[in-house]
Formats: sequence, structure tokens, C-alpha cells
Amino acid sequence: MIGVDWGTSSFRAWRFGAGGEVRAEVRAERGILRVAAGGFAAVLAEEVGPWLAAGESRVLLSGMVGSRQGWVEAPYLACPAGAEEIAAGLVAVPFAGAECRLVPGLAARDGQGVPEVMRGEETQILGALAGSGPEALFCLPGSHAKWARVADGRITGFSTFMTGEVFAALRSGTILGRMMGEGADDEAAFARGVARAKDPGGLLHHLFGVRTLGLMEGLEGAASAAYLSGLLIGHELAAVMTGAEEIFVVGAPAIAARYATAIGLAGGRARRIGETAGAAGLALIARRIGWI
Amino acid sequence: MIGVDWGTSSFRAWRFGAGGEVRAEVRAERGILRVAAGGFAAVLAEEVGPWLAAGESRVLLSGMVGSRQGWVEAPYLACPAGAEEIAAGLVAVPFAGAECRLVPGLAARDGQGVPEVMRGEETQILGALAGSGPEALFCLPGSHAKWARVADGRITGFSTFMTGEVFAALRSGTILGRMMGEGADDEAAFARGVARAKDPGGLLHHLFGVRTLGLMEGLEGAASAAYLSGLLIGHELAAVMTGAEEIFVVGAPAIAARYATAIGLAGGRARRIGETAGAAGLALIARRIGWI
Repeated sequence: MIGVDWGTSSFRAWRFGAGGEVRAEVRAERGILRVAAGGFAAVLAEEVGPWLAAGESRVLLSGMVGSRQGWVEAPYLACPAGAEEIAAGLVAVPFAGAECRLVPGLAARDGQGVPEVMRGEETQILGALAGSGPEALFCLPGSHAKWARVADGRITGFSTFMTGEVFAALRSGTILGRMMGEGADDEAAFARGVARAKDPGGLLHHLFGVRTLGLMEGLEGAASAAYLSGLLIGHELAAVMTGAEEIFVVGAPAIAARYATAIGLAGGRARRIGETAGAAGLALIARRIGWI
Repeated sequence: MIGVDWGTSSFRAWRFGAGGEVRAEVRAERGILRVAAGGFAAVLAEEVGPWLAAGESRVLLSGMVGSRQGWVEAPYLACPAGAEEIAAGLVAVPFAGAECRLVPGLAARDGQGVPEVMRGEETQILGALAGSGPEALFCLPGSHAKWARVADGRITGFSTFMTGEVFAALRSGTILGRMMGEGADDEAAFARGVARAKDPGGLLHHLFGVRTLGLMEGLEGAASAAYLSGLLIGHELAAVMTGAEEIFVVGAPAIAARYATAIGLAGGRARRIGETAGAAGLALIARRIGWI
């Protein structure tokens, strides 16, 4: 079978063997925002066509492809939900080339009743459970970073933080970006930003310090960007962490390493789980419905 | 004499009578970012030329015109500073048309030693003291909102919040803006945002709620923008307010009214002081040096 993680900005597909092992992978910069309405079937056929021609007949999709802006809208499942509920909630997608189904996203509410949604991360979390065990706290960094708690193999609730997107908007759309060069690799400045998040004054005040530290103390270029990154991630951690917890970080190497560093600085214990979680989750769901 | 508040985006000049009363006013969208290097004298001569021709011979400038990107850089004065220190720190500006001096900005450090700077607001605060008395807490909303404490007529310290600029960057540069129409006038949504700021989870989490409330509960258009505005101002207030304080709000009517509403919702007592504070501050400094 074929599994696809089809997000806002990227497309990633795997061909699985009979035992659920990955036999081949395709990546493309063809996220759903770059696909014209009505164009999803053609893009899928193009990207995984060779595998279909070689005999594959089943495709499982996860991610924003199941959103209102995607191919077919899959209703959100309510938390708590695990592999069983998700497998039971798959949505059929009309596709001439193969039997095609879509993984539903999850919905929850935070402690004050404000809605939460995810699409794609639920699949990665299922895939990561093999490495974490059935009780765990997960962090999935990104434009919209997700923090999810799993109990007895089910996602019981989660919170989203707009950390990545806010970083990009502040860098490109405010005076702070004028002092920043390319890159954000400066470990000392990053750590300083993480520490700053614990000070009183709040994020909106701390942001102005990015500018004054540049003006008055020469914190510029990559150091300024690293400081801002640390500041934002530090504020995210301050809102989530309650002590020396073990946190499983699921994500691409560079950003996962940055979060692991910040979690350590904040007194937690970060465990990284590689990028294969998305593929593992698709295989796990496929196994539930007898496709593997 | 002539007083000028010359900021990043706008130019505002007043002609004062012998008693310090405003006799005439000029406004122009000619902030320092629109003035080419070396072009400040020409712009000033053009905007206040008729008053110079009518016999005025002294010009007092305040605001970002004294910054590194301005006409002449005036060093920051350290807090605490009041009318006496500021009048003693005026910087001469070479200008063929009149005797011309520049009000220095102020510098401070927050409780953790991070630098703070202001240019122009110190003049407005001096001008507002006539309405507040010599001990007061001031709020000056804007792109970079300033909160300043005054004791015995001197500014003892201040904090900056990037509230206005962050609002604009989130609206124009993130997914949140896609659900917002023009305007941000929805009192109920604004109040809901102010209240939300008190919930746990932090600003980066609360921001994602702007999106989910739009997706799941129809909070869109002007209501979404008003909610975001309330959320940001609410976070600013949560970092500054310690209880039922009296707060003097200095600023243009629309934004000052919005802050006054939020301060009331947060349990404080807002007192508004009109937009004439900038002119009053320039007159007060001019009086110190015998120009009035």
C-alpha cells in the first residue's frame, strides 16, 4: 500500500512492503496550497503513478489534504482517540487509480473551552508511540506547534502554539527583522532568549528587548534571530511544562534539536523521535484495516 | 516659537503664542522614514516656512527625528528625568532658518537589566502632567506602547510593549489575517479577547484560538480582528497592572478609547488625556529655556 502525508506546504509519500516496511519514498513541494481546486487526483496520480503502475492499489492519506481547503473534507474526531477510533473514522476518497482513504483530524477543547484542531499530527503521534510507550507527552514543533498528551495509547487532549508562524511574521513584518541576517544559529543567544522568557513583563514586552539589545548591546544578525527563536520557544515551554517532565519531540532534525535544547534548559528531559513517525503511523492505521 | 513632534510616520508642528498657547497647527505624512538623508532641513523649512516668514525664529523638535535614522542623533538621557533634566539636555541642530534644538530621548532598564528607550513620549508625558499631577502611571498606546511611571514630576522608569506592531504583523503576515475583514470594531469580541488573556496557556496558544474560534464558532471579519486586538492588549495589561490602579492614557481618540475600555475590563481606572499632550510638553520645555 501507499501512504501519503499531504500538508499545507509539502507532499510526502511512502510505498510500504507487506510487513509495513518502507520500500520507497517520494517528496515534492506540492502542498495543498499549491494544488488548484479539482487538481488533487491528478497530482496524486503523477507523484505515485509509478507505484500504481507497479501494482499498488491502496492509498492512505493524512494531513491538511482532509481539510476544507483540501481534496475531501474529513470531519474531526473528538479526543480521546487512538488507532482504533481513527481507523474506524477513515473517509473514502473517489480516485480512479486505487482505493483511497483519508485519515480524519482530531478536535479537542482546552481547559477554557476554546477549540483545538490537528490534521496529520495524530498520525505522527500514533507512529511515535512505538518509541514512547502508551503514556507520554509529545511535542511536534512547527508553524503551529502541537503538544499532545497520550494515555493508554490514545490522544487525550492537545494544545497548539503559533510559535513558528509568529517567528516568521515578526522577522519579515516588523522592525525586529531589520537587525537579523540569514540563519538563526547562535547557541548562546538562543539560550539567552529561552532564559528571558521566564522574566516578568510578558512576551509583548520581551519582544521590544530584541530591538534594544540590538541597538544598545550589539545583538544583531544571526544572534538576534536565535534570541527571538529562543524567546518564543521559551514562552511556549513556560506555558506547557510543569517540571522535569519527559517530553517526546517529533519533528525534522534541525527544529527538533532546537526544541530539545530549550526543553533541557527549561529543566525537562527531551527524547527525540525521528522523522519516520508519519510513515509509521500510516502503516499502523493500514494494519488496523487489513491493508498490511 | 515653533514646536515639532516628528515621528517615524508623521510630522506635526505647532506655532505657540507668547503665553504658550497654540496659535496654529500643521500636520503632514512626512515621518522620518519618508525623508531622504540630508533632507530634514528642507522639509522643516517647507512645512513651517510661513511661520518663519512671519517672524518665528526658534524651533524645538521632539521624537524620532533625534534618532540614528533622523536628522541629528541626540543621546538618550537616563531615568529618572523630568523637565529640568530634559531642558538641560537639548541638542542644537544646524538650521539656517532659525535657532533649532532637539529634545533627547530617555533610556532606562527593566527589572532584569534589559534596555528601554523612548523618543517623543517623554515630551507627551511632561505635557500630560498638568492633567495627572506629579505622581502617576501613564499608558501611551501605539505600535510600541509605552508605560511610564512618574514620581515627583520625573519619569522614573518605563516599559515598552510591541502590541500595535505585532497586531499589524499578525494580521498581514499570518493565517489569522485571512478571516479578518476591514476594521476591528466589535465591542463584545474585543471584551472576549481581553478576558481570554487571563486564561492559562500563554499568548502563542491564545493566538491559535483566534483561528479555531473562526473555524468552529464563526468568529470572523471585524469580530476576529477585534478579538485579536483585545487579546494582545489584554496580555499587555496583564503584564503591567497590579490591581485597581489609576492609569492615564495618552493617545489619539480611537486607540485611547480602546485601551480605556480594556483597562476598565481588567479592573483598573482609566483616565484619558487628550492629544494635546505633545504640544503642551514642547511648550513646557520651551518655558524652561526662556523661549516662552
